[in-house]
Amino acid sequence: MQDQKYMELALTMARTTSGQTSPNPKVGAVVVKDGEVLGFGAHLKAGTPHAEVHALQAAGERARGADMYVTLEPCSHFGKTPPCADLIIRSGVKRVVVAELDPNPLVAGQGVAKLKAAGVEVEIGIGKEEAHSINEHFFHYIQTNTPYVTIKAAASLDGKTAAKTGDSKWITSPESRLDVHQLRHEHDAILTGVNTIIQDNPHLTTRLPRGGKNPIRIVLDTHLRTPLESNVIQDQAVKTIIYTGNDIDSKKADTFRNLGIEICPLSKSTIDINEVLFDLGKRKIMSILVEGGSEIHSSFIKSNAFQQIILYIAPKIIGGKSAIPFVGGSGVELVQFANKLQFESVQHIGCDLKIIAKPHKEESNGCSRELLRN
Amino acid sequence: MQDQKYMELALTMARTTSGQTSPNPKVGAVVVKDGEVLGFGAHLKAGTPHAEVHALQAAGERARGADMYVTLEPCSHFGKTPPCADLIIRSGVKRVVVAELDPNPLVAGQGVAKLKAAGVEVEIGIGKEEAHSINEHFFHYIQTNTPYVTIKAAASLDGKTAAKTGDSKWITSPESRLDVHQLRHEHDAILTGVNTIIQDNPHLTTRLPRGGKNPIRIVLDTHLRTPLESNVIQDQAVKTIIYTGNDIDSKKADTFRNLGIEICPLSKSTIDINEVLFDLGKRKIMSILVEGGSEIHSSFIKSNAFQQIILYIAPKIIGGKSAIPFVGGSGVELVQFANKLQFESVQHIGCDLKIIAKPHKEESNGCSRELLRN
Repeated sequence: MQDQKYMELALTMARTTSGQTSPNPKVGAVVVKDGEVLGFGAHLKAGTPHAEVHALQAAGERARGADMYVTLEPCSHFGKTPPCADLIIRSGVKRVVVAELDPNPLVAGQGVAKLKAAGVEVEIGIGKEEAHSINEHFFHYIQTNTPYVTIKAAASLDGKTAAKTGDSKWITSPESRLDVHQLRHEHDAILTGVNTIIQDNPHLTTRLPRGGKNPIRIVLDTHLRTPLESNVIQDQAVKTIIYTGNDIDSKKADTFRNLGIEICPLSKSTIDINEVLFDLGKRKIMSILVEGGSEIHSSFIKSNAFQQIILYIAPKIIGGKSAIPFVGGSGVELVQFANKLQFESVQHIGCDLKIIAKPHKEESNGCSRELLRN
Repeated sequence: MQDQKYMELALTMARTTSGQTSPNPKVGAVVVKDGEVLGFGAHLKAGTPHAEVHALQAAGERARGADMYVTLEPCSHFGKTPPCADLIIRSGVKRVVVAELDPNPLVAGQGVAKLKAAGVEVEIGIGKEEAHSINEHFFHYIQTNTPYVTIKAAASLDGKTAAKTGDSKWITSPESRLDVHQLRHEHDAILTGVNTIIQDNPHLTTRLPRGGKNPIRIVLDTHLRTPLESNVIQDQAVKTIIYTGNDIDSKKADTFRNLGIEICPLSKSTIDINEVLFDLGKRKIMSILVEGGSEIHSSFIKSNAFQQIILYIAPKIIGGKSAIPFVGGSGVELVQFANKLQFESVQHIGCDLKIIAKPHKEESNGCSRELLRN
């Protein structure tokens, strides 16, 4: 029970750093002795000290003989900072409770092995599920070298993201729209298609009442049709990368490049989603938020190139055969070929529902039953 | 607290009679003295004794000085059975707790007035919200003389009820499909359009593992195109009524009539939903379940002729601009003209979500936050 409680504290700290640690994972740590908390710590930003360092610093000499709770396996390698396992051993901590092993091949059990070899008691697994969910972007990236993809959409109850005229302002409530800015803050990059740029001319920035990190902006634009006067080109808020096909006008590309925009022609005349994801992975972009129109959504879904869909459903009926559906493209011929998902959670947000669905896992029974959170 | 507990018992009985009391309301009653339950009762079927009669019969002479809990105001008029208020007074019950007054103009406070005049203590309002929700079909019908309309649909997460080929088998899980049969049992009638009859040839009957009441079948068929060999015409499972426009072939109509089908031409060449509802009201049909295709759904929604939408959402993406949306028709031009709803509840059912939405009430804040029930 005590172990659970202290790990929950460490997890709470980790969760709070959402959006600020990439490409590192979110990690929290607590040092406790005789029921007294001696130190709290969380990893705050890549390149700065790890959670364990902060917590042990606060504890100082009193750490000797204490228990430490840490949400991810302490590192054993020299990265931008020295190995935490060594520091823990030197500090005299008696026992370390770890929520989950680090999937990073540079750590992968070696941190724990080092601790054990030095006589530190280690317990693994308390709070594992929560720890995993906090770092699912990181885990996915480490294991696949491609970013975790979240498709975000806002639709009416009848699945429309815009009326037949293209009008889409506003489908969801202010609370949902604010939540989207939190999502932007939590993702390394945001991706959309050139049609959305032309139609809506969005900034794609994070606008939270108390600030937030802007995700890198990515536009899929086969023929480089993005207007030079677009906000994503002109506002200089954050880097913009445009992926194009392989036969674009190089003079035009140079004009964009002179404005500081990165133009990335891909290997084929059309855009292959997986090639884009592979390239983003090489750039250490761990997560992308896809805020496309219905064709972009369809491309990612058809390619099975997504890890979750977050759909905000407004209590409205737009109706109409020619209104814009949340997923366009050609669609499947038969229902049995539909892309299978499973509902992860449903939440009331403002007047809307926020539904999180993930690809169906064969090993699960497919019917997640998490309680609605208000 | 005791009052709440006994009223909850009475409400539970009332709820359990769902589908069997129409055109009467569902009512439960409990007689209690000195913490001992002396009698339970519920109204079981129109034309048979009311809840109070059963409960007082069980209590017998011991009812003298007892408390009675009843979910709806006891009647004061001679209908198919004598007035319950008189019976309660004769029984010597000391105090009656009533969840809600009867909206029926033949009762409307007179039952309570009669009890009070005879010196019976009366308390009103305990469990009112639940009592109202149990009888919402009845209340709506009594107040409007038209049936309570539930639009039911099953869709993928992207709002499609069928793939572009028309294939729709099966979008939702067996649990959701079973739930629909429960809905059919609970509604007096089921309504669909001729296109659904032609495409799917459904029976529209209630198929529950332990039986159930078949709703009267209603087909909207402007030009009387329903095939004679359709299941709803041939299977004799329950009455079928076909509403048509005013210029149908009378010989053809007679062929249907000879098969026992009721053909009802309306006043105009096209079908006016409100005229249909008015006629159904005259037939004492208190509730209809609309299981249409996307055009029928659109007609009801455009006419604001519905009291609730029950949407089963399956964790699937069908995709495609030409896949069949859950609401067809022409749709609104601008999002601000969308039909406004409010979410009443969200429930996990099998792998699916069951969402209940109702027309937005201006006086509410529009954001119902009922907890998810598993």
